[in-house]
Amino acid sequence: MKPEIRSAVREIRSDRERGARQLALAALQALRAVAPECSGEEFRECARALALSRPMMAATQNAAAAAWAGYLQTGDAVRATEEAIESIESAADGMAASARRVVPTGSLMTYSYSSSVIELFGRIRPRRVILSEARPLREGLRMARELVGLGISVTLITEAQLALFVHEADAVVVGADTILPEGDLVNKIGTRLLALAARDAGVPFYSVSETLKVAAPSEPVPFAPEQGDPKEVCAEKWLEVRNVYFEATPARLVTAYVTEAGVLDPASVGRFADEAERRWRALMDAAEA
Amino acid sequence: MKPEIRSAVREIRSDRERGARQLALAALQALRAVAPECSGEEFRECARALALSRPMMAATQNAAAAAWAGYLQTGDAVRATEEAIESIESAADGMAASARRVVPTGSLMTYSYSSSVIELFGRIRPRRVILSEARPLREGLRMARELVGLGISVTLITEAQLALFVHEADAVVVGADTILPEGDLVNKIGTRLLALAARDAGVPFYSVSETLKVAAPSEPVPFAPEQGDPKEVCAEKWLEVRNVYFEATPARLVTAYVTEAGVLDPASVGRFADEAERRWRALMDAAEA
Repeated sequence: MKPEIRSAVREIRSDRERGARQLALAALQALRAVAPECSGEEFRECARALALSRPMMAATQNAAAAAWAGYLQTGDAVRATEEAIESIESAADGMAASARRVVPTGSLMTYSYSSSVIELFGRIRPRRVILSEARPLREGLRMARELVGLGISVTLITEAQLALFVHEADAVVVGADTILPEGDLVNKIGTRLLALAARDAGVPFYSVSETLKVAAPSEPVPFAPEQGDPKEVCAEKWLEVRNVYFEATPARLVTAYVTEAGVLDPASVGRFADEAERRWRALMDAAEA
Repeated sequence: MKPEIRSAVREIRSDRERGARQLALAALQALRAVAPECSGEEFRECARALALSRPMMAATQNAAAAAWAGYLQTGDAVRATEEAIESIESAADGMAASARRVVPTGSLMTYSYSSSVIELFGRIRPRRVILSEARPLREGLRMARELVGLGISVTLITEAQLALFVHEADAVVVGADTILPEGDLVNKIGTRLLALAARDAGVPFYSVSETLKVAAPSEPVPFAPEQGDPKEVCAEKWLEVRNVYFEATPARLVTAYVTEAGVLDPASVGRFADEAERRWRALMDAAEA
């Protein structure tokens, strides 16, 4: 294994700042850097290591599998990796076009940090964005800073106020860490509360996501390892503290996925899971080795 | 107006620590202190000032109105006030008896700080209690400390994790700041999210409350004034920060009110609102002056 890949894997594994899209790009950029010097099994080994660096995030797994699938077709590791990068980077235009069909531009609510949402809001320019802190690491505050930098009015609240303020929103738009094959949305903890509040208030709930985030059924998606240090929440030692980072919001609470391939009903993401499954098997199956 | 009452009103108005029950008791204790030296219109004036000290909390309004109603019957200000205090203090036994009929004693979830819930949990001794911080003032941590002091196992989470952890609870038991005449529950902001999550998970949602917390239709219950300093949430000046303290959870999300008068369906609290209304009018109406 190339040392550059080993260090990229370590970096991606411990990253608690960047979102799924950014980590998928980071994995591909690491692969791009070694692509000129490796091909065949060595390229596959690097792609596999990067694919498994972040088991919660299908985008990283799928991006590495897409690069390998491209290599299988063309035999050109550099070109295959660059095409995978290009397909992520160009997805933003497609997502924005889809969003313009369904997402209103008045008051929008979002949650935690999402580079896809920042990209989108920079283009559709909502009048106002409401978001909460996203304790314990307060990615909401980081998100607020970027939106204000784009000239968008932001209202910051606590998580506790989500059900009150969702009534002021015309729609909720969040990102995605992973979309499960049945259409459930894996995202930062707290997303499900916001989806429940939105449903109860009759406010549509969208996730703006590349279809690359749809997980293949065989990809590993264990939730348990993705827990933060309890001290991030509370340093007191006399009680048990839990700090789970991600949760699944059931498909029934998601109005639609706004993707580069159109506005998708959650029930219809299965075909992207099938594609991801084929690429994932090509990358991982021993028979193909 | 007696200066002791003026200072009690100021203290109750600015209190962000004590719950509804404790503030009602504080109002009655202030009234008890002046009762020997005042009667008639002066007693009524003191009761009115205390009743209006905390417009969000029906218990304080009702407690003062109950003392006046008692005075109207007996002409004895001291005795009337003491009986009102006694009725709050003895309600804990009745609430515990009601709770034993419906509340399981395995894993319970609660929210924010409630002296009624602490009283109850000390008696029914659940195996484990899950609660969240209750940002920004973290009353949840204060509540956790008291429960651990009673020898109860406590798990502390962030608000964001409420929908995940409610699946580990056999029931949710919260306090109440005020119960509206139609059965809606006014409580610390975040309660509605927890009620939505409980409903979605099929977990019963109880509020343990004295019937004294049921508001009369004519009592003032403005929400807007009960906002904290935005700096409690975030001191950054480049964005709007909101810090609302209370919200209403609709009656349809409350399984039952566990009161000293029994386990009440939210739709049936109206008769306590009628009683409160009679006492409130007796205290406030100009015709009675």
